[in-house]
Amino acid sequence: MTISEEALRLHEAGKGKICIAGKFRLKDRNMLALAYTPGVAAPCMEIARDKSNVYKYTMKQNAVAVVSDGSAVLGLGNIGAEAALPVMEGKCLIFKEFAGIDAFPLCLKTQNQEEIVETVKNIAPVFGGINLEDIAAPKCFWVEDTLRKELDIPVFHDDQHGTAVVVLAGLINALNVVGKGKSVKVVVSGAGAAGIAVARMLLSYGIKNIVLADSAGAIYDGRKENMNPVKQEMAVLTNPDRRIGPLSKIVAGADVFIGVSAPGILKKEDVAKMDRPIVFALANPTPEIMPAEAEKGGAVIIATGRSDFPNQINNSLCFPGMFRGALDARAKSITEEMKLAAAKALSSMVKPGRDRIIPGMFDRNVVKSVADAVKKSAH
Amino acid sequence: MTISEEALRLHEAGKGKICIAGKFRLKDRNMLALAYTPGVAAPCMEIARDKSNVYKYTMKQNAVAVVSDGSAVLGLGNIGAEAALPVMEGKCLIFKEFAGIDAFPLCLKTQNQEEIVETVKNIAPVFGGINLEDIAAPKCFWVEDTLRKELDIPVFHDDQHGTAVVVLAGLINALNVVGKGKSVKVVVSGAGAAGIAVARMLLSYGIKNIVLADSAGAIYDGRKENMNPVKQEMAVLTNPDRRIGPLSKIVAGADVFIGVSAPGILKKEDVAKMDRPIVFALANPTPEIMPAEAEKGGAVIIATGRSDFPNQINNSLCFPGMFRGALDARAKSITEEMKLAAAKALSSMVKPGRDRIIPGMFDRNVVKSVADAVKKSAH
Repeated sequence: MTISEEALRLHEAGKGKICIAGKFRLKDRNMLALAYTPGVAAPCMEIARDKSNVYKYTMKQNAVAVVSDGSAVLGLGNIGAEAALPVMEGKCLIFKEFAGIDAFPLCLKTQNQEEIVETVKNIAPVFGGINLEDIAAPKCFWVEDTLRKELDIPVFHDDQHGTAVVVLAGLINALNVVGKGKSVKVVVSGAGAAGIAVARMLLSYGIKNIVLADSAGAIYDGRKENMNPVKQEMAVLTNPDRRIGPLSKIVAGADVFIGVSAPGILKKEDVAKMDRPIVFALANPTPEIMPAEAEKGGAVIIATGRSDFPNQINNSLCFPGMFRGALDARAKSITEEMKLAAAKALSSMVKPGRDRIIPGMFDRNVVKSVADAVKKSAH
Repeated sequence: MTISEEALRLHEAGKGKICIAGKFRLKDRNMLALAYTPGVAAPCMEIARDKSNVYKYTMKQNAVAVVSDGSAVLGLGNIGAEAALPVMEGKCLIFKEFAGIDAFPLCLKTQNQEEIVETVKNIAPVFGGINLEDIAAPKCFWVEDTLRKELDIPVFHDDQHGTAVVVLAGLINALNVVGKGKSVKVVVSGAGAAGIAVARMLLSYGIKNIVLADSAGAIYDGRKENMNPVKQEMAVLTNPDRRIGPLSKIVAGADVFIGVSAPGILKKEDVAKMDRPIVFALANPTPEIMPAEAEKGGAVIIATGRSDFPNQINNSLCFPGMFRGALDARAKSITEEMKLAAAKALSSMVKPGRDRIIPGMFDRNVVKSVADAVKKSAH
C-alpha cells in the first residue's frame, strides 16, 4: 500500500482526525444543572460583569483557530476550503499532540481579504489565538497585519513566521559550525509568505546583507516587473549592494542560500560559486537542490524540509511551543522579540554539527523550550 | 455551597467544558507522515476532485457549529459573545454526551444580521450543520431564513424549533389525556423566537385556532402597536376569531395555554376561565404560573421547563436527535416534515398520563427515537 492509499484509509476510517471531547460526563441531572441551566448563568454573569473572566471560566484560554481560505495549500495551490480541511485538521492534531492546545480548523468559503478579516474578527471571542495557514501571498500579509492591529489576541501566520523562526534557529547553528557571523551574504529564493518572512526575521536578527529573489531574479529598489507593495518594501530594506540578475548570478560569492521557492532551481554549479556554502533547500517535497548534488557543489551544511535527510527545517518545531507560550503568558500579540527568543531557544537545544543544526520534531523538550522562551519574552 | 458557587468552581477547574481530542496519537514519524505531509495531500486531492468527498475524509460529517451573537441568552438578555460562551460550550457538551456529535461554539462579535449571515456562510465548509442559538427576535427569523436558503447543510434555530417540537410532542399527549383533538383553542403567550415557532408548528400539525399574544395582548390582523413583519405575518395566519385584548381576556374559553414569555403573568383566575385547561408555563426559571397555582385554577395538565416538576418541556429532548438524524441522512435542510416526525416520535415514547406527557432527558432512547424518525423523514 502506498503512503497515499494508507493516508486515504486512515482519514476515511477515522472520519477525520479530530473530534470534540467533554471535560466531564453529563451523567445525571445534577451535572446538567451545573454545566447548563440553571448553573451556567453564574459564569455567564461573571463574564458579563468583567469580560476578562472569559479566560477564567471558558475554553478560550487554551483555544486556537487554525484559519485558512485554501488559497495556497501545501504544494497543491488554490484548492479551496473543503479540500484544505484535511491539512487544517492535521495541524490541529499536531497542536493537541505536541502542545496540549485545543485548535479548531476554520476553512473559509471566501478568499476575499476584507471578508477573511471580518470573519476572523467575528469568531475571535471564542479563541485565545489565531493561527493563519496556507493563505496566498501577498494577501496573507495584509490579512495578518490588519488582524494584528484589530484583535487583542495573538495572530500568527505560520507559513511566514513559523518557517522564519526555524530557519533562523538552524542558521544560527550552521554559522556557528562554519565559523561565520552576522556579516554573511545571504540569498533568499522565494518572495512569497515564507521568503518575505525569512528575510525580515534575518534582518531582525542583525544579518544585513540579504538579497531576496523571485522567478524574475534579484529584487532591488527600482525593479519594475513582477512587484507588489510588500516586495517593494523589501527591495528598500534588503540588497544593500544592489545586486541584479538571475539566481545563478547572485549566488556567486554568497555564504548562505535559503530556498523557499521551487524544485530544482539551484544547480551544483551555482553552489560551487558560493563561499563555504550553507544551503537550505526547503521546497517540499522536492527541494531546490537535492542534498547529494549540493554536496557535489561543495556545500558544507545542507538542510531540507524533509524527514528523510538530516537537518529537517519544519514549522512544527515552532508553532506548538509558540502558541503554548503565548497562551500561557496571555500575550496580546506575538512580537519580534518572542520570535527571536523562540529561534534562539531552538538553536540552543542542540550541540551543533554539520548534520545536527536543529532538534528533531519528536524531541519532546522542543515545545517546552520554545514555550518557556516565548513566555519569558512576553513578560 | 450554592449551585452558582458550585458551577463557578466547575467551570474554573475544568478551564471550560469541552476540548479537542485527536482520533489517534501522532506517536512517530510514520503517523505524522500519514496525518500531515506528505500523506495528507491524498485526501486533499480527492476532495479537490470531488467536493462531496469532504464528507468521506474529514470531520465535517459529524460537526455542528453552535452559533450565537449573545443577544438573547437564557433569561440573561443581551450579554454579548464572551458571556454567552459558557452556554454554548454547555450546548456542545450536550451534543457530545447525548448524540456523539462534535459541536463547536462560535460566539460572534457582531450582532448585525447581515454580518452574522456572512460569517456563518464563510465558516460553513467545516460543518455538517448549523445550530443557531440565543439570537434575539425578530433578527433570528431573517438570519435563519437567509442561511437556510444559501447553505446546503441543515440550519436549525433551536430556540424556535427545538422548543416547538417538544411543545408539540407534549401537547399531542396532553390532548390525548383530556380526550380533545385538533379543534382546540390555543393561546400562545410570547411572540419571540419560541412563541412564533410554536404557533407555526401547531399550524403545521393542523391546529387552526391559535391566538398569539405578546405584552400588548392578542396579535390580530390590523393591530398597529408593537408589530414587526413576522408578527404581521402571524396575525394573518392565526387568530381566526379575531380575538382582541389582554391575556386575561383571551384565555377565556381556551383549551390550551402555552407560555414562552415572562414569569407570573398567568393567574389562577385566568386558568379558571379555561376549559379543562392544559397549561404549559415554560418561562424559565420562573414560569408564567407556578404549578400549584395552576392546579388551584383547575388545570388538568401542567408542564414547565423545570426539572423539579413533572412534564419538563426541554429543548434537549429534540436537538441532539434532530441533528443526529439530519447528519446521518446527510440532509440538506431540516424540513417541516422532519420536525413533525421528531415531535411524533417523542410523544410516542411514553404512555401518556397527567404527569407523563413527555419522556425524560436521561432516557437514552430519546436521541435514537428522534434520530430514526428524522432520518426516515429525510429520505
